Amino acid sequence: MDYKEELKACHDRIKPYIHKTPVLTSSYLNDRGSCEIYFKCEQFQKMGAFKMRGAANAILSLTEHEMKNGVVTHSSGNFAQAVSLSAKSIGVPAYIVMPENAPNVKKDAVRSYNGQITECYPSIEVRQATADKIVEDTGASFLHPSNQIEVILGQGTAALELLDDYPDLDLIVTPVGGGGLVAGTALACHYFSKKCKTIGAEPSKVDDAYRSLKSGKIENNETTDTIADGLRTTLGDVNFPLIQKYVDQILLADEDEIIEAMKLIWERMKIIIEPSCALPLAVVLKNPDLFSHKKVGIILSGGNVDLKKLPF
Amino acid sequence: MDYKEELKACHDRIKPYIHKTPVLTSSYLNDRGSCEIYFKCEQFQKMGAFKMRGAANAILSLTEHEMKNGVVTHSSGNFAQAVSLSAKSIGVPAYIVMPENAPNVKKDAVRSYNGQITECYPSIEVRQATADKIVEDTGASFLHPSNQIEVILGQGTAALELLDDYPDLDLIVTPVGGGGLVAGTALACHYFSKKCKTIGAEPSKVDDAYRSLKSGKIENNETTDTIADGLRTTLGDVNFPLIQKYVDQILLADEDEIIEAMKLIWERMKIIIEPSCALPLAVVLKNPDLFSHKKVGIILSGGNVDLKKLPF
Repeated sequence: MDYKEELKACHDRIKPYIHKTPVLTSSYLNDRGSCEIYFKCEQFQKMGAFKMRGAANAILSLTEHEMKNGVVTHSSGNFAQAVSLSAKSIGVPAYIVMPENAPNVKKDAVRSYNGQITECYPSIEVRQATADKIVEDTGASFLHPSNQIEVILGQGTAALELLDDYPDLDLIVTPVGGGGLVAGTALACHYFSKKCKTIGAEPSKVDDAYRSLKSGKIENNETTDTIADGLRTTLGDVNFPLIQKYVDQILLADEDEIIEAMKLIWERMKIIIEPSCALPLAVVLKNPDLFSHKKVGIILSGGNVDLKKLPF
Repeated sequence: MDYKEELKACHDRIKPYIHKTPVLTSSYLNDRGSCEIYFKCEQFQKMGAFKMRGAANAILSLTEHEMKNGVVTHSSGNFAQAVSLSAKSIGVPAYIVMPENAPNVKKDAVRSYNGQITECYPSIEVRQATADKIVEDTGASFLHPSNQIEVILGQGTAALELLDDYPDLDLIVTPVGGGGLVAGTALACHYFSKKCKTIGAEPSKVDDAYRSLKSGKIENNETTDTIADGLRTTLGDVNFPLIQKYVDQILLADEDEIIEAMKLIWERMKIIIEPSCALPLAVVLKNPDLFSHKKVGIILSGGNVDLKKLPF
């Protein structure tokens, strides 16, 4: 696949369905990190997260016939909303498998975007089986939140826009969960910048991607015990080879560093971000040897957070 | 005074010291209000509020001799930070009188901008007397947070930028506290738009400006019992005549409506605003007869809020 052409085509394809999100800076945080940080604000994306990009591209990459049969995914989080809203905007049915114990606020959000919810027992096996059954019954296309090339390319368009605005970035840092965002970002940096490296940021307690890069095979998480609830997932066989090839390194941050970085962004930048989004700033502040005097892009991935459960 | 020329000159004068803040929109809130709303994000302004504009203009309007002697104000809130940071950027000493019971976080913010704090007994009379004494001792110029024409013109530059980006706005809505922002906004609308009206938004419980416009004289507040802590002040003899002449009307919102609007902005727009900033959206949603099918600008005035004391 010619990723350079594909990334450009993907961006053109999804443009009518996404926001070009703004880039914010903070002189206070620049001082703290002794670097220039450019925050790409995907929490201002439609439905509140970068996942809109990948979902829209995956749906728009279907044939007309496939589109008629709709799309299906299982998710309790942002990807469920992203698929529902993209499908609604494009005019395609969306079937969303959600664990029966998912919070009502998340179910309501999916319903507000016309997503058709099927509830199931909360285990990954039952979720997948329920989605498979819908595929069988309706002919809908299954969409994976991070391990599908169309989704990965879609997520990469955030970095594409950031590099378009700031072509001389030295590094772009993203959080690493399922691996779609970091893989897409690495493709964008590789093909659209001469020097910009991609760095992934992961919770020390859920460091599967860090260990996978070391061992050369996809490692599982030993715990999912992190406040960064969007990053509890593991890599997949589509994104892992891209991460191995194009991501410079994965850096880790502890829970207290994640919370501190989240608080700094809320208090100093006056924007609402999910805990998962705080990882990049946490690793930038933790590793001055790598980042000081550099121009650093950070993808703020989303802002869907429960305001009643703040960690500070 | 030629306000049109003065506003333009003021904007040119303060440009190096302020951010041109971004304008955000929300399709959800547009649907809710059946109108197009353009949010001017002054919570992203330097030090986190529009007050930076007025403070910078007031200091830059001093003579070189006056600048040497510095500036003084009494404030426990955003204006103290705005004066300190402007003075620091311009290279002028700033003396800030603060009530001895002001929260440490506010004192620390002033100190971080090199403001020299004098603490005093927490009454308005003692605050003014303490400031007067500093004027006498140092020759510093006293700056008022809302009742001084240089400050009013500075605050008006937020609307000036908004009209420059969106020249066909029908209405701009601002919160009304001391009256500086609404008066400056009204001047900008009058001189830089053919049709744009200015509307002020005030808590029902602290409706001094609403009653002042009705009675034709400056009324006092009977209580200051509102969550919108930035709006507990009253109008002054410099801004009131401008408000009488150029503001179309003042609309009121109840406490529950203010909290609901604040929550909507946090949850849907992913931005952090003070309760005072929620007033304009509250009155827009409350008065569909006035706002539906209109293009509405809203000045989000600031984002300095205690994250430990959220009303939801």
